[in-house]
Amino acid sequence: MALELYLDLLSQPCRAIYIFAKKNRIPFELRTVELLKGQHLSDAFAQVNPLKKVPALKDGDFTLTESVAILLYLTRKYKVPDHWYPQDLQACARVDEYLAWQHTALRRSCLRALWHKVMLPVFLGEPVSPEMLATTLAELDVSLELLEGKFLQNKAFLTGPQVSLADLVAITELMHPVGAGCRVFEGRPKLAAWRQRVEAAVGEALFREAHEVILKAKDSPPADPTIKQKLMPGVLAMIQ
Amino acid sequence: MALELYLDLLSQPCRAIYIFAKKNRIPFELRTVELLKGQHLSDAFAQVNPLKKVPALKDGDFTLTESVAILLYLTRKYKVPDHWYPQDLQACARVDEYLAWQHTALRRSCLRALWHKVMLPVFLGEPVSPEMLATTLAELDVSLELLEGKFLQNKAFLTGPQVSLADLVAITELMHPVGAGCRVFEGRPKLAAWRQRVEAAVGEALFREAHEVILKAKDSPPADPTIKQKLMPGVLAMIQ
Repeated sequence: MALELYLDLLSQPCRAIYIFAKKNRIPFELRTVELLKGQHLSDAFAQVNPLKKVPALKDGDFTLTESVAILLYLTRKYKVPDHWYPQDLQACARVDEYLAWQHTALRRSCLRALWHKVMLPVFLGEPVSPEMLATTLAELDVSLELLEGKFLQNKAFLTGPQVSLADLVAITELMHPVGAGCRVFEGRPKLAAWRQRVEAAVGEALFREAHEVILKAKDSPPADPTIKQKLMPGVLAMIQ
Repeated sequence: MALELYLDLLSQPCRAIYIFAKKNRIPFELRTVELLKGQHLSDAFAQVNPLKKVPALKDGDFTLTESVAILLYLTRKYKVPDHWYPQDLQACARVDEYLAWQHTALRRSCLRALWHKVMLPVFLGEPVSPEMLATTLAELDVSLELLEGKFLQNKAFLTGPQVSLADLVAITELMHPVGAGCRVFEGRPKLAAWRQRVEAAVGEALFREAHEVILKAKDSPPADPTIKQKLMPGVLAMIQ
């Protein structure tokens, strides 16, 4: 049975996995789980992932959640080029360091920027105060400073001279606030040049394809009340 | 030059690294960074870790932050027994899954439980409303349910029949609310039995030694005003 990936390209970790699998020609069956329709909350999907979150992977009887774990699993199982997750002890540690850091830093900021700026007010009809939005965008700035100052520095990619899982996880995050209309790369020439290098490394057509959904997120029609009621608890927990 | 580990055993990821290094007889020089004295905010420590957080590792010229990355680095460099981070593809993925999940789930709940219940009111003299504390403890309950239902299930350890990095990272987290006086294991016989197994696997004397500081945290004398002012911004960012 083919590898199954449960994804919604609206989600940043799903985009990272989608790009990674396509770029490395890993054969998989795409199982789309539409988050904005609440399909991740269904009983059927809870059988796949009791955490009710995408992404999830099914490989025969083996089910795996958490995007970082899924990326590492694919890396090992399909023996992808070394640069994604290097064998070299220190180079590998640099990738691990970024993958650990991002959970509570860039991930949180990018997610909150999208939801506070667009998804809560436009899609769910829940106003966000200007003060709250300003705080969120200030937090995003702090994360971007660290991304550039602590991780990218003067290297071509976040963890060394070649593209790695860290770059893929980071760029798919940054496209969240970009989708919300934040000018993340304006006034940040080093990050902008890095973005171009990552896009070129994964392939521009694939990068564009994976980001079509998020770049249209700000035009989402308002959710109907049933969907809104269904989604709200999970959304509030996610962006807290 | 010997491996240097910058730790404060008040911090849960530091305890995981300390126990792991000691248990596996990895030689290291302990560099204590006293968090409650604000030593992590010093210019000297910023040279080691610009993120101004413990743990940090120095191995000659190589500096590494983030506890999960440090644990994986030690695992690989010192060729520790396989069960900590198995070579087997699926067993390894289970450890990765837990290590990714905990960042925004159990980690957050345990940290907030300690600070809301003890460190903010007792050490920093900042009252926490009963509603806020109740919310925090309810979040901790949700994380504990997932820890037992999604991860432990009916296995001996979180990811399989033997102790792994996942168990070590989890137990050191849980000792945070225990240090705050929360009865985490009461009414949870499966988690209580798992705790006994983890303690036996790492060695009870070492476990006790690593947790002396946190188990005394609730008796911390109040911080003086200069220290409080120095620590507050970081504390608020950490427990948000």
